[in-house]
Amino acid sequence: MKLLTEIDLDYIAVGASMLGSGGGGDPYIGKLMAKQAIKRYGPVKLISVEELSDDDLVIPSAMMGAPAVMIEKLPNGNEPAFVFRSLESYLGKKATAVLPIEAGGLNSCIPIYTAASLNLPLVDADGMGRAFPELPMVTFSIAGVSATPMVLCDEKGNKILLETINNDWTETLARTATVAMGLSSMISIYCMKGKSVKKYGVKGTISLARNIGEKIIESNKSKRNPIDAILDLTNGFKLFEGKIVDVKRDLTTGFIRGKVTIEGLFSDRGSISTVDFQNENLIVWKNGNPLAMTPDLITIIDGEKGFPITTEHLKYGQRVVVIGMPCDSFWRTEAGLKQVGPRYFKYDVDYIPIEELVKGNKK
Amino acid sequence: MKLLTEIDLDYIAVGASMLGSGGGGDPYIGKLMAKQAIKRYGPVKLISVEELSDDDLVIPSAMMGAPAVMIEKLPNGNEPAFVFRSLESYLGKKATAVLPIEAGGLNSCIPIYTAASLNLPLVDADGMGRAFPELPMVTFSIAGVSATPMVLCDEKGNKILLETINNDWTETLARTATVAMGLSSMISIYCMKGKSVKKYGVKGTISLARNIGEKIIESNKSKRNPIDAILDLTNGFKLFEGKIVDVKRDLTTGFIRGKVTIEGLFSDRGSISTVDFQNENLIVWKNGNPLAMTPDLITIIDGEKGFPITTEHLKYGQRVVVIGMPCDSFWRTEAGLKQVGPRYFKYDVDYIPIEELVKGNKK
Repeated sequence: MKLLTEIDLDYIAVGASMLGSGGGGDPYIGKLMAKQAIKRYGPVKLISVEELSDDDLVIPSAMMGAPAVMIEKLPNGNEPAFVFRSLESYLGKKATAVLPIEAGGLNSCIPIYTAASLNLPLVDADGMGRAFPELPMVTFSIAGVSATPMVLCDEKGNKILLETINNDWTETLARTATVAMGLSSMISIYCMKGKSVKKYGVKGTISLARNIGEKIIESNKSKRNPIDAILDLTNGFKLFEGKIVDVKRDLTTGFIRGKVTIEGLFSDRGSISTVDFQNENLIVWKNGNPLAMTPDLITIIDGEKGFPITTEHLKYGQRVVVIGMPCDSFWRTEAGLKQVGPRYFKYDVDYIPIEELVKGNKK
Repeated sequence: MKLLTEIDLDYIAVGASMLGSGGGGDPYIGKLMAKQAIKRYGPVKLISVEELSDDDLVIPSAMMGAPAVMIEKLPNGNEPAFVFRSLESYLGKKATAVLPIEAGGLNSCIPIYTAASLNLPLVDADGMGRAFPELPMVTFSIAGVSATPMVLCDEKGNKILLETINNDWTETLARTATVAMGLSSMISIYCMKGKSVKKYGVKGTISLARNIGEKIIESNKSKRNPIDAILDLTNGFKLFEGKIVDVKRDLTTGFIRGKVTIEGLFSDRGSISTVDFQNENLIVWKNGNPLAMTPDLITIIDGEKGFPITTEHLKYGQRVVVIGMPCDSFWRTEAGLKQVGPRYFKYDVDYIPIEELVKGNKK
């Protein structure tokens, strides 16, 4: 068990955004909320999955929708505890811990906020090891854990409890509700036993995010470029370096869907790279060939300071480096690729692990 | 207390469609369901509002969405009891009776089906005295009764429980869910105490529907035209007679929205009348002037046999009579008109009661 304090929030917000693969939400609001909650209620206990008993009830806490709208449509602050407690009361059982469902700026901070508000420990694990855009895209779902009962609410106080016949229907019904609520909602979903978290969770995500964030922030303090350290911590690769010359974005479906075009600089001068995203970066192209693809992690970072840029913050003129990192091995199984591989997102390419792609492109 | 038997279902299906003002759903499926339930579980007790105790819990049962899809997307039969029982268990209290929420072919039969399946009495009242397209358009809502907790489900088994901050949000969230479920759902909503039903319910709707239906069916058996008898029972007026020459319909918003054009025959030869609808007929026009408007009832009936034609069954070539009937006095109050008057439906006209319009048009 470790204790998460305010400074850890600074680290986690940055590091989780790096793992968020462009998604998981801008951490700004979530970090402020979590810091405030820690100031008020004290540090949050971060426990490893081994500290859970098999029969403990664990409930995840997250934000759903297009993170971009949360910059203007602020939470009232009660939502995470409200949906969490509603789910507990529906189940007739108290939860032992809060679980992050994905790694991402906002969605790593929200569960810390929830844990602080409810005085519960946070589990150092998640269901992705990165961020993904749709609800069934978690290891737990593929392992057969039901997404429902799920509770979602908006900042106005509207609450919805879902019981669906499968996790695809959870996605459909929660997504339309989230769009109707104004494109964002707070959710508790995939409540499960400690046993399932131990068996299927991606372990150590919060600690890893913390270490990445610490490295970026501390390197910047001493004016060192943190990129090599990031690649080292994540087993990642530098894929492309350049200037953003175009960003297309559409929010109407409850996701941020779009594409960013980057004109090469330095060793990439003369080349153009594009990155497609649906909340998260899905695939990086260069001259018609993929440099990395989902489910491997693709993050666009500030070329100088190394801070990750989420898809809602991509802008014309930014000097960026595109980095790719191998995903958790769970996603490389047949079942994993069926749910989050390139073909799921309608790309007519077979998945090739980033290590192999990088090797091939070097030849 | 009366007993509703199978023959009553034939009468109610027809009579409630007459009161449904074009909406409330095609009764075909609902009638078959209710007859089968009566065959299986025995006749349904029809009780007057006076037979309720003030503290009795009463739960309405209805279908939501575009009734047209239910002709193909059949219910599995468990939905009404499933949502009704879910709401009871959420409230932690058993209901004493089932209440129809509106008068309309399908939505007068569904609560009979529910009452038979659950062995509960049916209250001889409803929240409209006709049908309306949106959830807050019931007397109870205007009187301050909350639409939520509300439960809705689809024929696949997906279930949603809503708790909203007001009844407009119930409409928004239940409508988007219903669209996502395939344009129709079964609902239980506006659970309330016996006291509220007594105070705000439109009384005797099921009996009135039964009497209208009996008159139409029995007149046809003896080859008499039932129109005068219908006008007599409903204080109604014959507004226009002719042949349908055009029908426009759009289902994409979860309603049937559209317009029917009727070419005059007999005394209306040479005139054109149009009727606008959103599930229910909203306004009848002739030469740019309204002949009747919401909240008064407007029903298009078969010109020869007097059977009401719901908006999903309007077809080119049908010989029809448009009739208008005064609504319950509740709807003619300022609060009533604000919720269901012509301006609510974006018509730039002030409400004029049908009796006055008819008098004016005769001059």
